[in-house]
Amino acid sequence: MPAGEEPLLSHRPSSELSADRDLAEEDALLTGRRNGSPQAARSRRWARWREILTFAWALIATIVVIVLAVVYQKKTEGQGGAAHTAGKRNLVFMVSDGMGPTSLSMTRSFRQYQLGLPYGETLSLDKFLVGQSRTRSTSSLVTDSAAGATAFSCGLKSYNGAIAVLDDHSPCGTVLEAAKKAGYMTGLVVTTRITDATPACFAAHVNMRSEEDRIAEQLVGDYPLGRVVDLILGGGRCHFLPNSTEGSCRDDNKDIVKMAKDSGFNYVHNRADFDGLNMGSAVNLPMLGLLADTDIPYEVDRQYQENTYPSLDEMARTALAALSAATQDSDKGFFLMIEGSRIDHAGHANDPVAQVHEVLAYDNAMSSVVEFLQKDTVPGVMVSTSDHETGGLAAARQLHSTYPDYLWYPGVLANASRSAEWLGREYYKEIVNHPDGSYGPYLKRMLEDALGVRDYSDDEIQSLIDSPEISPYLFADIVSRRSQIGWTTHGHSAVDVNIYAHPAEAATALSGNHENTEVGDFLRSFLDVDVDAITRKLKAEGVSHGEDGAASSTSYEWMGPLPEDGERLDGQDHTDHYQGDFKKHKRCEICGV
Amino acid sequence: MPAGEEPLLSHRPSSELSADRDLAEEDALLTGRRNGSPQAARSRRWARWREILTFAWALIATIVVIVLAVVYQKKTEGQGGAAHTAGKRNLVFMVSDGMGPTSLSMTRSFRQYQLGLPYGETLSLDKFLVGQSRTRSTSSLVTDSAAGATAFSCGLKSYNGAIAVLDDHSPCGTVLEAAKKAGYMTGLVVTTRITDATPACFAAHVNMRSEEDRIAEQLVGDYPLGRVVDLILGGGRCHFLPNSTEGSCRDDNKDIVKMAKDSGFNYVHNRADFDGLNMGSAVNLPMLGLLADTDIPYEVDRQYQENTYPSLDEMARTALAALSAATQDSDKGFFLMIEGSRIDHAGHANDPVAQVHEVLAYDNAMSSVVEFLQKDTVPGVMVSTSDHETGGLAAARQLHSTYPDYLWYPGVLANASRSAEWLGREYYKEIVNHPDGSYGPYLKRMLEDALGVRDYSDDEIQSLIDSPEISPYLFADIVSRRSQIGWTTHGHSAVDVNIYAHPAEAATALSGNHENTEVGDFLRSFLDVDVDAITRKLKAEGVSHGEDGAASSTSYEWMGPLPEDGERLDGQDHTDHYQGDFKKHKRCEICGV
Repeated sequence: MPAGEEPLLSHRPSSELSADRDLAEEDALLTGRRNGSPQAARSRRWARWREILTFAWALIATIVVIVLAVVYQKKTEGQGGAAHTAGKRNLVFMVSDGMGPTSLSMTRSFRQYQLGLPYGETLSLDKFLVGQSRTRSTSSLVTDSAAGATAFSCGLKSYNGAIAVLDDHSPCGTVLEAAKKAGYMTGLVVTTRITDATPACFAAHVNMRSEEDRIAEQLVGDYPLGRVVDLILGGGRCHFLPNSTEGSCRDDNKDIVKMAKDSGFNYVHNRADFDGLNMGSAVNLPMLGLLADTDIPYEVDRQYQENTYPSLDEMARTALAALSAATQDSDKGFFLMIEGSRIDHAGHANDPVAQVHEVLAYDNAMSSVVEFLQKDTVPGVMVSTSDHETGGLAAARQLHSTYPDYLWYPGVLANASRSAEWLGREYYKEIVNHPDGSYGPYLKRMLEDALGVRDYSDDEIQSLIDSPEISPYLFADIVSRRSQIGWTTHGHSAVDVNIYAHPAEAATALSGNHENTEVGDFLRSFLDVDVDAITRKLKAEGVSHGEDGAASSTSYEWMGPLPEDGERLDGQDHTDHYQGDFKKHKRCEICGV
Repeated sequence: MPAGEEPLLSHRPSSELSADRDLAEEDALLTGRRNGSPQAARSRRWARWREILTFAWALIATIVVIVLAVVYQKKTEGQGGAAHTAGKRNLVFMVSDGMGPTSLSMTRSFRQYQLGLPYGETLSLDKFLVGQSRTRSTSSLVTDSAAGATAFSCGLKSYNGAIAVLDDHSPCGTVLEAAKKAGYMTGLVVTTRITDATPACFAAHVNMRSEEDRIAEQLVGDYPLGRVVDLILGGGRCHFLPNSTEGSCRDDNKDIVKMAKDSGFNYVHNRADFDGLNMGSAVNLPMLGLLADTDIPYEVDRQYQENTYPSLDEMARTALAALSAATQDSDKGFFLMIEGSRIDHAGHANDPVAQVHEVLAYDNAMSSVVEFLQKDTVPGVMVSTSDHETGGLAAARQLHSTYPDYLWYPGVLANASRSAEWLGREYYKEIVNHPDGSYGPYLKRMLEDALGVRDYSDDEIQSLIDSPEISPYLFADIVSRRSQIGWTTHGHSAVDVNIYAHPAEAATALSGNHENTEVGDFLRSFLDVDVDAITRKLKAEGVSHGEDGAASSTSYEWMGPLPEDGERLDGQDHTDHYQGDFKKHKRCEICGV
């Protein structure tokens, strides 16, 4: 064989097939020389077979590669976090404000007791547990909802009270803003004021969460980015009405509803309007739905006012249907934030009755979200977590100096049918209507009918008569003690909170223990949006310029005043449901249990 | 081309290479006909290249198959839970008794404060979080350690107080017993009495956890199965010594140490003995190591008594080395249970200082276990969980009637260097030694030196003087209030507890939210042992027979008396560190903070 004609395939497989005869045949074949003998015929047949076998080998190996690759792909889908998802997608981010670990075991056992279920019958959300979140803010080991939601929306730590601003009082772009700019549709659904910290952190930027009038304006688009929210459902109407109007809680006379309508928003503001949306199929976006003056009532009270207020689940399903329909022909999906806002309020009120029903309402909404995602053709993920725990809640409470038995009584919560907040308001009305009444019989009837408590003591009744201004706390305490549910504070606590996700395979980045900012990282990563570009835009366009045209580093005037040293920033000065200061009553004197 | 000679390779790749000319060349080559033209030369070169390319294709595809298969194998190893592991294996089951969700965030922040670490520096165990466990027993929503550990050891729910027996007072086989019978080596390492509920549930069966004398006997083999534990390290020596001996707490005069030695146990009972074990390399099994009369002191106090007591970490590493060496030539590995027993005690005492150091000691031990598993050539898994939470602990506490700030102070815990238990004992000694003393200056010095508290009030000092019998609670309260750490009970609570595992891939069955019995299921499944066979054996061999030879269904006499109706079964009547009844002091009168 001439030099240069040596077959390139010179390192032959060392199998039995590469015997010398085969080599001869191969050379003959490759050089085109015929042997002209019976061997030559065998050689030709063998050559054909060899090529067939080699091709078959290659083909089979290739098929196996494809099969393995597909199986492997399925197995690892999403394992590296969100970044692997390609194409159109939806993200539903759920926030259980103030729901800590004990909220879950308390509500689970309450439900099992109430429905006579075995202990294996868990809440829906128990099926979706993937991890836990560490919640501290930059200013404290115990976060408030503002810093908590900023961690989710911006993916960055900030101070208690910060609405999507950082410690240096510069704005940080949010995942919702980035999603909108990237072509997604966006929505916010809450049961508290839509101007409250959690929803605000997704589409507004102010230095103090108490600036709710300003937040209302920004939510409808009056800030450097313009309108970024397509669908709003919740309470807090009072911050959108001019203070010349009944039901307003604004400091000024601006009409934010009109502002919203002028810029294109459709507006719904009562149950009839909401019913007209036909669970989402009749929604025209953008939509501003303000369905309560302030908060939508606790679920335990709302159930008696179905004709006045929708449930969290109804609002969630309406939003899912509306956003799904609106993005039907888009190559981008939607980002929806749904908050079970008032789990937190029940914690602040130390009211276990209100809380178990709030958690169950949240659980229902999560079931609907998961059901939607499972049926939808667009790939979607639900992620749920809390911003913090509220109340220092424990499902165990020592009532006596003797060593405590190991138990608590869900039956006490099942006997109650109203929140302590509702009882307090009714009692207040009674006092206003009958200023000279003797309230003993009224209060006893209330305790029996609304709380199912018949073993009240004279001291408890007297305490309610003597201190009506703290009656919501007293009502809550009456139930907490009898159920042996404990609380350590009316504020927040520092415990890690749970993270839930579905499908879990699409959110493996959230498995295990995480800083709350990593939840924010996941949101932006799943949607594949550029939050940092939004931050740059806010910084460039949002800064105020002096007469000389120079930007001042502290001149984000639209973000409102800076907090003064020592100012309360956790938002607890605001709402109307903490009726008066909390006065520590001498518990052992009023609690005959 | 004659019929029958049509190349089998007739579905040719539809690439650019398979043009008509190529087909002609191919046919010529396969039939051996020479074209004798420049085309023929090209044809020969092409034929050679085609065979080379086909072979290369086959080779590359095969290599890819192999690579993919290996990667896939690695990826799916253990993903189906424990049952897929084949061959020799080790299992380390860690129990953090009484450690609830808040114990983690409290200890993590304490450590960050103490060492000046950023908030991202977590505990070791934070890296291994995989799920949560629901803890209720059959008798209560709030379990005790006995029912909790029975869920782990037997994989079955039982009543509070049950040591590996069921509601019908029949024995249930344990994973440790089944492991021993299957050829594994076994070990128990604890910081409390080895006769306490958690370790007892793995290798003893009694109807009431208070039967610790009986448990001691069973642990060394005096029960139907004979000896099942190869290595014991912990406290509780007093239950092994005859009551004629100093340091005994037995009701009878039996010498369980002698019984153990007679049946082959090597015995170590002090620090010098333990040091002689040379961190495990000089252990001869079976080994009974009883290193304290009752409990090994809290870590925060033990650190000053290094020469008297080993740490949990030292005992854990000793056990790992000893069991590993003892199974070196076996086709079975080992099962080791390691308990951070006294996290629970710190919870009962409502002492946050003792607790953070106990949790850190547990965290250290877990690091050592993980390091061992990572280096070991035998496949092994670490699973860690708690039986329940203790104390209703919250990292937030409202001290005043005014609305609380959102914070707690780890610095207060960092200033303290002793447990409240230690302070109480020292104070008790002082009273015994100086029965007529005025203890004010002594107590102030104590608070300053041992707790770092200088802002004590006169009322606090007076309260300690007036009620020395509850001084441990008063000392703990002084620190808890100043750090703003809250507690709702001196008992247990019902919150879900965390599950940790390493490697997580080998314990995916424990991802998410689980009933505590599912942890037990995992243990037996990972070891692939027949626990039910042990139950049958215990029932068959353990039952007592009357004179007529008939078995009585209630005659497991070796399991001790049945509890009487209303009897306290949670074990809180036993230990010596709850000094006297808990008397509720009027907190607002003694706490000037």
